[in-house]
Amino acid sequence: MKGNCIIAQSGGPTSAINASLCGAFLEMSVNGDIGKIYGGINGIQGILEEKLLDLRPILNSDNQIKLLRQTPAASLGSCRFKLKSPEERPEEYAKIFQIFEKYDIRYFIYIGGNDSMDTVYRLGEYAKVQNREMIFMGVPKTIDNDLVGTDHTPGFGSCAKYVATTVQEVAQDNMVYDMDCAVIIEVMGRDAGWISLAASLARDKENQAQCDLIYSPETPFSTERFMRDLAAVRAQKKQALVIVSEGIRDDQGKYLSDTGITDSFGHQLLGGAGSVLADLVRRELGIKVRSIELSLLQRCAAHYTSATDLRESEELGRFAAKGALGGLTGKMAAIRRLSDDPYQTEYVYADVSEVANAVKTVPAEYFNAARNHASYRGLQYLVPLITGSNEILLEHGLPIYLNLASMYTHR
Amino acid sequence: MKGNCIIAQSGGPTSAINASLCGAFLEMSVNGDIGKIYGGINGIQGILEEKLLDLRPILNSDNQIKLLRQTPAASLGSCRFKLKSPEERPEEYAKIFQIFEKYDIRYFIYIGGNDSMDTVYRLGEYAKVQNREMIFMGVPKTIDNDLVGTDHTPGFGSCAKYVATTVQEVAQDNMVYDMDCAVIIEVMGRDAGWISLAASLARDKENQAQCDLIYSPETPFSTERFMRDLAAVRAQKKQALVIVSEGIRDDQGKYLSDTGITDSFGHQLLGGAGSVLADLVRRELGIKVRSIELSLLQRCAAHYTSATDLRESEELGRFAAKGALGGLTGKMAAIRRLSDDPYQTEYVYADVSEVANAVKTVPAEYFNAARNHASYRGLQYLVPLITGSNEILLEHGLPIYLNLASMYTHR
Repeated sequence: MKGNCIIAQSGGPTSAINASLCGAFLEMSVNGDIGKIYGGINGIQGILEEKLLDLRPILNSDNQIKLLRQTPAASLGSCRFKLKSPEERPEEYAKIFQIFEKYDIRYFIYIGGNDSMDTVYRLGEYAKVQNREMIFMGVPKTIDNDLVGTDHTPGFGSCAKYVATTVQEVAQDNMVYDMDCAVIIEVMGRDAGWISLAASLARDKENQAQCDLIYSPETPFSTERFMRDLAAVRAQKKQALVIVSEGIRDDQGKYLSDTGITDSFGHQLLGGAGSVLADLVRRELGIKVRSIELSLLQRCAAHYTSATDLRESEELGRFAAKGALGGLTGKMAAIRRLSDDPYQTEYVYADVSEVANAVKTVPAEYFNAARNHASYRGLQYLVPLITGSNEILLEHGLPIYLNLASMYTHR
Repeated sequence: MKGNCIIAQSGGPTSAINASLCGAFLEMSVNGDIGKIYGGINGIQGILEEKLLDLRPILNSDNQIKLLRQTPAASLGSCRFKLKSPEERPEEYAKIFQIFEKYDIRYFIYIGGNDSMDTVYRLGEYAKVQNREMIFMGVPKTIDNDLVGTDHTPGFGSCAKYVATTVQEVAQDNMVYDMDCAVIIEVMGRDAGWISLAASLARDKENQAQCDLIYSPETPFSTERFMRDLAAVRAQKKQALVIVSEGIRDDQGKYLSDTGITDSFGHQLLGGAGSVLADLVRRELGIKVRSIELSLLQRCAAHYTSATDLRESEELGRFAAKGALGGLTGKMAAIRRLSDDPYQTEYVYADVSEVANAVKTVPAEYFNAARNHASYRGLQYLVPLITGSNEILLEHGLPIYLNLASMYTHR
């Protein structure tokens, strides 16, 4: 089907989301049916404001593609705008499809998480009802690794590699003084503990785990159990290292650190579970405790990514574009794992309707029996995702980026 | 002079301190006069407990040296033990020199900051008074870059590179949403603002600074001035990025975040200047604000170091050992800069008595007139220190380390 195309990005940034953009763009750009390839600035929210950037004149060399691939965060800009139903917001749907018509858009590729897949689903359904000949395709993206329908999500592998490496480094730092102390590292993960699980990859040369305890949202958190676990660690060694997901909560579902603030999606804003625990340990044990929140760093550390993750992110972008060009709609490009070692995968298409709004938590068998570390099975799952490094182009000692959203603003 | 040697590490960790250990060891190991080369575990505090590790059998291959070089934090362990005067603690001096005699130690090389140089000075003076034929030599180390007598300190370049890169990444992340927001990043620096100054290196392709405002301890901090500065930034753009040193204080010398706790050196424990400012901005402007504390990450990020820094750190270790073998005592190996571009330096020996306990703050001319960013002169100083990258040996996707202190514990 001849026509133009929009590629856009949505949801929280990752350091691999632009690799997916590269893949989708490159696949689209060599197809004779495709005219203009627009970047949608700030996702569907920007598209509603007709913020479209013609990508072909910009992504016109290998070097530009390389820069885009190594740029952290969504180069096109992102949004946290969740499309409501056509019944609730008929004017939004009318506006979007008016813009699609104005720019002769036939293909819409959305790189994002489960909220974004909901958008892909809704737009696709609306197009069917309205008899619009259009293709809607999703590419997964989230450091949280919590999308159903795919073995793992682009962005997670790089986040896992960064977190595991950081844990290794902090563990070295934490043991330099001959004194009793503890570090508590808080990682992202509201409902799923994938990122905290990744900390279990941190090992020394003798394959000893470098973090002692891991707490994820999958298991109700109890401060009594935590203090018992910590006492057991401290019976063996002076320095303890603990990882907590931001979303840990008690058996009543109450978050350890409940700020009482919600974001525009109605999700509760969290933060501080690590510092709450650090205060507790300081008070109860009187030892030196530091709490470190990895915050944005864990999702934008493009200087240190997983080669596997970036390769897969780009290939999934290509695979989504291929499917779209082949006439598939309402699908998300996804990864099916065939084996852990050797690591083998194939790409498949998942129904966005099944991905939308669902959350994939860490399976019970990926945790140890005490639910405070990864099991061997969990490690088998994680290891392939962090292998390989990516070379980064530097100028004056620092990485250089291609930010498409600023090019739009300053065009 | 024939005899044995101790090399030890002290003070806060860096990601380059083990490169200096490599340099000192390698230089000592090929000299025919030197018998055993001991690693002092946990600095002078561990030496007092006779914690010595024979390094030759361990550092016996290029691969082991390579692993040691890429290991973050003090591989030998460190201490925050400050030696008092011989009058105050005669028994400590007697004990240390008894151990020196027992192990036939003729050379003592201490890698550390200004407190450690004070130790080198005191031990050297005591040896003179006691007519002990011994050499005491210092190698500088601190991410804080606040030692006098040297153009810059090993460890700072890697920290600066990490901080500038992180600022670039967070800047990309901070601009993905089309909304008013701010990020405040807190970096280390109690009395000197070198690390916050390094954030000014963060640039985009058009050489625009990626952090908008920088506040260092050198200039008394005023919240009124800060809010005015921020308003000026926000008049130009939606997203602001601010860097603060942990040690910013008002014109009365009161720290922005005064915990009221002091460490064993009597230094005030700080932390939270960034979150205090974030609270202020949230309250006054009602925009989304995140505060990020780089905490230990900025000093142990061995996965991403400056090639210049690691090379110089190792060379200074060698230079210190060379001087020691040549009979120099009471000195610290130091860097003298000859030119910025091309970057040229020479190594010299500074008197430890001049380095001990002194602090080198950022010169006024390295700041802009408003004292909230680097000047061109400041950038000229910083740029050469972060150039070049180091390849890291990985296993299963993660760096591998050589931790000598744990080898001592588990020997």
